[in-house]
Amino acid sequence: MTLSKTEKKILEDSIRDIQDFPKPGIVFKDITTLLNNKEAYGVLMNHLYQRYKEYNLEYIAGIDARGFIFGAALAQMLGIGFVPIRKKGKLPYTTISEKYALEYGVDEIEVHIDAFGKQIGARVLVIDDLIATGGTANAAATLVNQTGAACIECCFIIGLTFLDGIKKLQEKTDVYSVIEVN
Amino acid sequence: MTLSKTEKKILEDSIRDIQDFPKPGIVFKDITTLLNNKEAYGVLMNHLYQRYKEYNLEYIAGIDARGFIFGAALAQMLGIGFVPIRKKGKLPYTTISEKYALEYGVDEIEVHIDAFGKQIGARVLVIDDLIATGGTANAAATLVNQTGAACIECCFIIGLTFLDGIKKLQEKTDVYSVIEVN
Repeated sequence: MTLSKTEKKILEDSIRDIQDFPKPGIVFKDITTLLNNKEAYGVLMNHLYQRYKEYNLEYIAGIDARGFIFGAALAQMLGIGFVPIRKKGKLPYTTISEKYALEYGVDEIEVHIDAFGKQIGARVLVIDDLIATGGTANAAATLVNQTGAACIECCFIIGLTFLDGIKKLQEKTDVYSVIEVN
Repeated sequence: MTLSKTEKKILEDSIRDIQDFPKPGIVFKDITTLLNNKEAYGVLMNHLYQRYKEYNLEYIAGIDARGFIFGAALAQMLGIGFVPIRKKGKLPYTTISEKYALEYGVDEIEVHIDAFGKQIGARVLVIDDLIATGGTANAAATLVNQTGAACIECCFIIGLTFLDGIKKLQEKTDVYSVIEVN
């Protein structure tokens, strides 16, 4: 199930480039202009539904905070559960956490220890808006597997293929980007 | 469109009380156990869809970060756009922002100035997981109206009716809570 040329153009045209955000030299991919465009948002979510409806997924795990948007909508469409993977300190129950490197320093994400139920190997899709160096997604996939569930694939709306994040993440799990930016 | 007794029980049973989070004396309503329960999540989203399908909404605005979950899923179901209202500093384009009081100090949320399009009076539903004192929701409704759109209603999964947040917010807009906690 691939995007048609028309669908791809609708999605690409709906994403706004913001120069020098969050700091000089970075071109930020603003997906809020995709989300508030009902045509583009509908095309995207229908595409994700068509791709994943045969994957027998049991949960979608969305990464804090833009991954919540796509992940929760997709989980609703598939009729399965949604699990938030959050920045440290936001989840109220017992968690496991994973640190990952940033350009300067480290960050940490966590998930509830019982988030994916008691069944070992529950099939989980991890979703976020964008993959760059892949540190967050790698930590998220690790966390899912540490709970006893299985990260089947990591899905991104935008994949930056000029960085090595996708290649590194593919050593651990399958990776899918709806739109690739070279 | 009201919840049946069975549906209400499914939702109430799926929400987990966490004592003393984020600080002593507070009972935190953990909705992650509703979200990862496909039956409860399905009941909730179907209820929201049935309620709002005749409202002629043009956008759902979700409050950072748990409001993204319910808001994005509902926007997808209704076939309309989703707009994130974010904590200060997260949105890349031109924003308007609004401060609100916390128990100690102030916080600030913002929205893209062009988030709701060019049409004046676009009908917007604001959504979040829970209303307590209502400071954030009040600021969110103010922001929506300041962009030129119209906040038609604020919707919460849980309304804490022993605080005065709902009553204060009703001076500005309609308010709906799926579940009330007295």
